Amino acid sequence: MVTIQDIADRLKISKGTVSKALNDAPDISHSLKKQVLETAVALGYKKLRRYKTPAHKLGIIVQSRHIRFEHPDDFAYDIVMGFRQMAEPAGYEVAVIPVDDAMQRNISYDAFVLQHDFVGTFILGFSLSEPWMKHFYRTKTPTVLYDNRVLSNPSVAYMGIDNEEGMALAIDHLKQMGHQKIGYLSGALGSHITQVRHRSFFQAMRSHGLKTDPTFAGCSYYLSECMNRHLPRLLHMGMTAIICSQDTLAASAIERCEQEGFLVPRDVSIIGFDDIPLASHTTPTLTTVRQDRIQLGKSGFSALLGLLSGVPIGTVMLHAELIIRNSTARPHTDASPSAADQITAAGRDK
Amino acid sequence: MVTIQDIADRLKISKGTVSKALNDAPDISHSLKKQVLETAVALGYKKLRRYKTPAHKLGIIVQSRHIRFEHPDDFAYDIVMGFRQMAEPAGYEVAVIPVDDAMQRNISYDAFVLQHDFVGTFILGFSLSEPWMKHFYRTKTPTVLYDNRVLSNPSVAYMGIDNEEGMALAIDHLKQMGHQKIGYLSGALGSHITQVRHRSFFQAMRSHGLKTDPTFAGCSYYLSECMNRHLPRLLHMGMTAIICSQDTLAASAIERCEQEGFLVPRDVSIIGFDDIPLASHTTPTLTTVRQDRIQLGKSGFSALLGLLSGVPIGTVMLHAELIIRNSTARPHTDASPSAADQITAAGRDK
Repeated sequence: MVTIQDIADRLKISKGTVSKALNDAPDISHSLKKQVLETAVALGYKKLRRYKTPAHKLGIIVQSRHIRFEHPDDFAYDIVMGFRQMAEPAGYEVAVIPVDDAMQRNISYDAFVLQHDFVGTFILGFSLSEPWMKHFYRTKTPTVLYDNRVLSNPSVAYMGIDNEEGMALAIDHLKQMGHQKIGYLSGALGSHITQVRHRSFFQAMRSHGLKTDPTFAGCSYYLSECMNRHLPRLLHMGMTAIICSQDTLAASAIERCEQEGFLVPRDVSIIGFDDIPLASHTTPTLTTVRQDRIQLGKSGFSALLGLLSGVPIGTVMLHAELIIRNSTARPHTDASPSAADQITAAGRDK
Repeated sequence: MVTIQDIADRLKISKGTVSKALNDAPDISHSLKKQVLETAVALGYKKLRRYKTPAHKLGIIVQSRHIRFEHPDDFAYDIVMGFRQMAEPAGYEVAVIPVDDAMQRNISYDAFVLQHDFVGTFILGFSLSEPWMKHFYRTKTPTVLYDNRVLSNPSVAYMGIDNEEGMALAIDHLKQMGHQKIGYLSGALGSHITQVRHRSFFQAMRSHGLKTDPTFAGCSYYLSECMNRHLPRLLHMGMTAIICSQDTLAASAIERCEQEGFLVPRDVSIIGFDDIPLASHTTPTLTTVRQDRIQLGKSGFSALLGLLSGVPIGTVMLHAELIIRNSTARPHTDASPSAADQITAAGRDK
């Protein structure tokens, strides 16, 4: 059992100073606090703030650059609510803490967890390049990552919807209506989730017997590049439907299609991912793959509870659900000339 | 709300006869019972045996051709125990029922569930060609499939260990010891799990930067074909390690390698999958990817409880764990001639 004395001995400072540093006293410098915390983690010191009784404190750690949770319209609001709806009646105290890149570079994940007395955490909105991602490979803190996967650390679980299933549902819906040429627009492939959706698009096209090749997808970090370069290219390749990696992209695509002279869904069908509140307020309303965020929050807590009780949960995926609204329809038949044909004709007139 | 009268009307028989058939009375013919049950399912009739109070009855349905559960040495014994350890204290009654192919052909899955008053089931040992597999795509009964995946039915969840992770752990272990040429032996690719392990072998080889091609794997329904044809072929291709899709195959491989003049682990390392009790009793003892069967049973119940309470659980995978025993070692260096070299020399002598 590591004590405060061990930390003091290692750093050659007094027990009182260690205790003050661990308890975030105002008269200890930031750099010394950091050194004490990192040493505490290195030695395996478990318990902070001996004078309080934190008992069962869980942290929801949100990457504030990628995801918001404060307002009911924010993507993560319901995830946090679902988690708290399960955790608080079960006797856990839940703290929601935004972190950014700078904070991650400043303190290791384990030291941060120790500093906050968390017995487990639920991590939202982290991309693959996040500084703490490498810490997740070796942490011993029960940790559930939403939409991010770390293989082979028995203390860490991955939780999200089944994006492969969601993509299959989207392509199935389009194929049943008669679509054959289906394109894909995506944000940068810098997160686990964009990579899985991108791969699943090609898998689902193949498993539905539809022709595809890499030019059928357009990916960019910049929304403007997706809209100004990839979307027009896909339209002029004759795509009758385009699936977008997220609803915000799909909402922009609807507008941009109409600027290009393609009406949605008459000339081209559009499908999004996530079913954020915006999806029912676009014109036309958006067909999309729903992530049930209350259930994601509840399942995040269940998975964390599993890890806390020694069940080596690795992956929990919820079923995806396709919400069919007005942005998808049967493709044009040859009888009614499409906007694409009209544009081609207009092009020849010049 | 469908009543017994509705079933009677549909079949043009008396209410009393329907009631007797549903309650398995001895004076009703088997074919009439079956007809009544199938009609009850078709009409959506929910409650059997009105005179009893089954409340919360869960079924563990075991394909008796593939998997045994009666004895502590049997593969599914601990899975059943883990499930019951969670379910019974939670107030559920658990019945374990073996089924075979004939029984599945005789009655639909939903009729079987209705007949037994199950509110949910946990399915063990089903292969992809099982008659009920197609029923799992449209059942509304909360159903958890161990090692079998049915996409897109929100009432059905998949549960098992993360075989992709298990394969990566095995190849990582071998690569760290210096192995480069690694072969794979598998049973027939007729189950979800053998397909996943087969695909994961090639994925993990590539992601570890190791050369591989389809000839590096040998798969057969027949143990004898694996041992007499594929294993000698892999050995003479110069494999210094062979991963087997299950422990029983690995145990046979150890014996067969020695018959071919290759000592395990001196000349070739062998890794199994599952960690069945046999794995610690082979000579040498077997390095293998463990499935923690008690935890699988517990997680099976948790997933089923999720479905029963409306959480759309799709997939739950537990972390795999590599148990390192004595069937793996560093590969031969050139300094000490291997058995393969000796055999080649012997061949030249003839």
